[in-house]
Amino acid sequence: MIIDCHGHYTTAPRELDLFRAQQLAHLKNHSEPAPAALNISDDQIRESVEKFQLKIQRERGTDLTIFSPRASGMAHHAGNAATSLEWARACNDMIHRVCTMFPKNFIGVCQLPQSPGVPPANCIGELTRCVEELGFLGCNLNPDPSGGYWTDPPMFDQWWYPLYEKMVELEVPAMIHVSASCNPNFHTTGGYYIAADTTVFMQLLTSDLFKDFPTLKFVIPHGGGAVPFHWGRYRGMAQDMKRPPLKELLLNNVYFDTCVYHLPGIELLTKVIPVDNILFASEMVGAVRGIDPETGNHFDDTKRYIDAVSWLSDADRRKIYEGNARKVYTRLKVGAA
Amino acid sequence: MIIDCHGHYTTAPRELDLFRAQQLAHLKNHSEPAPAALNISDDQIRESVEKFQLKIQRERGTDLTIFSPRASGMAHHAGNAATSLEWARACNDMIHRVCTMFPKNFIGVCQLPQSPGVPPANCIGELTRCVEELGFLGCNLNPDPSGGYWTDPPMFDQWWYPLYEKMVELEVPAMIHVSASCNPNFHTTGGYYIAADTTVFMQLLTSDLFKDFPTLKFVIPHGGGAVPFHWGRYRGMAQDMKRPPLKELLLNNVYFDTCVYHLPGIELLTKVIPVDNILFASEMVGAVRGIDPETGNHFDDTKRYIDAVSWLSDADRRKIYEGNARKVYTRLKVGAA
Repeated sequence: MIIDCHGHYTTAPRELDLFRAQQLAHLKNHSEPAPAALNISDDQIRESVEKFQLKIQRERGTDLTIFSPRASGMAHHAGNAATSLEWARACNDMIHRVCTMFPKNFIGVCQLPQSPGVPPANCIGELTRCVEELGFLGCNLNPDPSGGYWTDPPMFDQWWYPLYEKMVELEVPAMIHVSASCNPNFHTTGGYYIAADTTVFMQLLTSDLFKDFPTLKFVIPHGGGAVPFHWGRYRGMAQDMKRPPLKELLLNNVYFDTCVYHLPGIELLTKVIPVDNILFASEMVGAVRGIDPETGNHFDDTKRYIDAVSWLSDADRRKIYEGNARKVYTRLKVGAA
Repeated sequence: MIIDCHGHYTTAPRELDLFRAQQLAHLKNHSEPAPAALNISDDQIRESVEKFQLKIQRERGTDLTIFSPRASGMAHHAGNAATSLEWARACNDMIHRVCTMFPKNFIGVCQLPQSPGVPPANCIGELTRCVEELGFLGCNLNPDPSGGYWTDPPMFDQWWYPLYEKMVELEVPAMIHVSASCNPNFHTTGGYYIAADTTVFMQLLTSDLFKDFPTLKFVIPHGGGAVPFHWGRYRGMAQDMKRPPLKELLLNNVYFDTCVYHLPGIELLTKVIPVDNILFASEMVGAVRGIDPETGNHFDDTKRYIDAVSWLSDADRRKIYEGNARKVYTRLKVGAA
């Protein structure tokens, strides 16, 4: 079985975006109408995934996508905590509908109602609803709800602890994932995503978060940002700071996905990061949609790269494709042996 | 000849830091004394580099370091434009003294008097002084003078253009280098530096800056942040945006250094980035000072990694070690054939 741990509902019917636009327009100017309840049919949902995610799953031979709302759509910097909650509920309910209609192909991960300056404890209700009522496996956690100004405390701060406590209690991991940038310095998918992945890894390296939460699990997407490329730097910095080796310090809790869109990158990832810490992912349909003229295949067809790494054994590939996802997303029971 | 294009004066006599501390204390509270003129002897300077940079150059068989003030010490977020100018002049004068005492071993690159919210045009005077009077080869340009809040315009904005015009006129490149982070989210050398490198590359990818300045040259340090690891992502994004291929779009103007502290990282760098765009560097004495227990050598002894890459020819190595530096830092005449 091949589990893609990182897929967003980037192809949702446009009514969802209209809902959001109305919501923000109403917030800005109360004389604008509040958004009407979403009216999206099963047929629309079917069409929105059949031509894209389902078709691509079949073409590439992958089975199950751990599926969450569009990451850039979360836009926690827009509106306030109430807006974020309404929006998160709407998006998570859409994911739930997709997963209910196609239970063999999708399983949910939720968006949280974060808002800059608002304690993450405010997310506990929606996280609990999604896990306990909707059967979701985890959440996407935004380390910078400000959208590129980094004004909230770092992820090792007690600010985040109540949410972590709930995650541990529910036995759900978080994928660390920023949303759209509202800072012109950061291109969302090309600059901000990758910079944030790297930034958070270093927050974890310098903290004792996992002493306080030994079973808390984070997936750092996009191959861990710059981290594998600079693995020597991070090993060296940890050593200079008299921290334990990275494996001991972080690798019981931190995992990397395979959203790295060329073979040399995947080779590096699988060379320096232990195979037990790598989860298959493609972020399909996501940031890069074209075909690589150098290979004739889609850039984001990451399975091809993993299949091409000569030093991975079949057992290694089973871990990357399935075993590690089951270890991290422990609530995942679908298709279990 | 082996030219290290990225060395900072991290071992300067402590009087320099005291000067800075006094300067900021006086700014905060004018009843504190203004800093006295720096009183550092030639012997102090000699001692500060003989035990460190000069010794390490000899041990590693490198010849010339393109030398600039300590990057994290620039701290453009502290004080104001006047403070930044006074501090930049003090630091640049120290570099000049080192280069004058050891002209075969060091050649200067300057710190600029940037300050958040202040147009970069204010740096033209100090840049000109350093290049024309002190014989410096270029500058370090901070893409985020706010120290981690990214409140100034991106590097493709006209905000920066007057400085670029002067750089082009003087025929000097910039190394894009942030300074200390005052944002608790960003660890300076582990998070912020690498995230900034990545962020700026994407700013360049989405802009037409080099149409406006076809001869402007930037070096992105630390191997380009995450860029080589995500080279497929960047190639794919450029293609999706209908931009020209990266080689055509950026690689006449953008160069990467080799401050990547393990062999797999250097292998990736030299596999995906054309050899013509790679400049040797170690950032010695810098962010990582220890010995890698996996190799028995210093993490930042990057020459060993380059020497170990099997597919580089002697001609390739000559480019990385010397030829490309001469192409980018065109004012460099020392030791020219």
